[in-house]
Amino acid sequence: MLEDRVCIVGLGLMGGSLALALRPYLSNLSIVDTNPETRAAAHNVADFVTGDLAEGVRQADLIVLAAPVRTILQLLADLPAVRPDGCLVMDLGSTKAEICQTMAALPPSFQAIGGHPMCGKETAGFGNAAPQLFADETFVLCENGRTTAHMKAVANEIVEKIGANLLYLAPQIHDEMVAATSHLPYLVSATLLQTAAGQNNEQLWQVSASGFRDTTRLAGSDPQMLLDILLTNGTAVLNQIEVYQNQLSKIKRLLSSANERELARWLEKVKKSHNEYRSSSV
Amino acid sequence: MLEDRVCIVGLGLMGGSLALALRPYLSNLSIVDTNPETRAAAHNVADFVTGDLAEGVRQADLIVLAAPVRTILQLLADLPAVRPDGCLVMDLGSTKAEICQTMAALPPSFQAIGGHPMCGKETAGFGNAAPQLFADETFVLCENGRTTAHMKAVANEIVEKIGANLLYLAPQIHDEMVAATSHLPYLVSATLLQTAAGQNNEQLWQVSASGFRDTTRLAGSDPQMLLDILLTNGTAVLNQIEVYQNQLSKIKRLLSSANERELARWLEKVKKSHNEYRSSSV
Repeated sequence: MLEDRVCIVGLGLMGGSLALALRPYLSNLSIVDTNPETRAAAHNVADFVTGDLAEGVRQADLIVLAAPVRTILQLLADLPAVRPDGCLVMDLGSTKAEICQTMAALPPSFQAIGGHPMCGKETAGFGNAAPQLFADETFVLCENGRTTAHMKAVANEIVEKIGANLLYLAPQIHDEMVAATSHLPYLVSATLLQTAAGQNNEQLWQVSASGFRDTTRLAGSDPQMLLDILLTNGTAVLNQIEVYQNQLSKIKRLLSSANERELARWLEKVKKSHNEYRSSSV
Repeated sequence: MLEDRVCIVGLGLMGGSLALALRPYLSNLSIVDTNPETRAAAHNVADFVTGDLAEGVRQADLIVLAAPVRTILQLLADLPAVRPDGCLVMDLGSTKAEICQTMAALPPSFQAIGGHPMCGKETAGFGNAAPQLFADETFVLCENGRTTAHMKAVANEIVEKIGANLLYLAPQIHDEMVAATSHLPYLVSATLLQTAAGQNNEQLWQVSASGFRDTTRLAGSDPQMLLDILLTNGTAVLNQIEVYQNQLSKIKRLLSSANERELARWLEKVKKSHNEYRSSSV
């Protein structure tokens, strides 16, 4: 690899999967994680494991920040003190505008790029990490004021090595798009689950099938990760909620008036959209 | 079986799976389907195949109606003319109140019970039918004015033979429950897909991952089936939309005011509900 001394900060599902996927290409991998159990497990994949940021990043050519968004923001604020000589920095955070803004404010000795692999699992943590997690999935990269040609070359190489599909997006555009494809889906899923759970009817789960299970799967996502997402992408998420609410109100009106013709037309449109989405997202 | 000459009307995913699951126990199985291609395929499982209702039901001890809800209502209206001597009738329709009301109005020579297997697939049609579809899933039965002890015994035996879990519910209760676990989830899923599709941004699907895919899976459901569901369960579905809208508006307010403490509390509550739902629906 262009840079073969890498430090990954945060060995969760994403950081852990990246560690496993990149391991064959690195001469030295260090891991920083605050959880003692995760650190114990990390010795299987890393040359050096620590709970101390300064110690972990000391020798790295490239630091990858893999944590909830606001933790990444804090880590970026801490970096200049622990690496006064600068280095390469990349992240795997769920929202990109605030992170890229903070990256742009790093001292000129740093080179930085925002990253977001578009994949996930219901089950978080290093225990569920897998080197194939990124394969054939989109990996978004976001340039900012500290992105150099060299930083891009390194990031491109990482994306290629882990088998992901590269997509460059402006940070704000990324955030608006994931508000629609990821953050609104979570809220919709969570609200659906709470609507059912609010009935306090134990029997309800007996008449729920795979459709309910799939539609509410995202409600099992990590609360801390979600809190950081919602607080750093509030405007875009609120816009999406607004569009969604208007659509739902429209359907409610058709249903209230038992407007068979318009309901049928809408149902056909939904089916057509679903076919188009599925055929273009294979 | 207690009744071993059975006629299944409608060889879609549900009727087809029932035909495959019950076949070993029947001396005579006839199939009625309006689609010539389905009829051609039906010869593999049935002794007699026809597109004509009167012809198909002539010799059956038990008729199982497996079609969209309003088609079932029409078939129930047609039955007295084609089987003036009466027989046993069961259905697999998605909503139960209107069907059970119509069953109760059959002549006294009929014995009838409402049925609804709580399972499904994204892909409809006999081509996707499988004898194991009902295994370990809940199968709701609904008594009505034409339900006899004998009809219940026959229905119970069917549910047992196909490996499903029996649950008796009053028709109205069933409809209210599936409004929350099935019909609202469809609307939520469809509205989410339309919100994203409305952006007319081809790139959007590239930044969508498995979360979006699962949350919008139900949007691929059969429009005709859904139309019948929504038009025969409007009141219960509207009630659920109302509760859902209130919940979503609450979250929107927390997000607008960036109320971190309350947002965090809600996210934790969602995660807890999800754990409870998953552990009680295994």
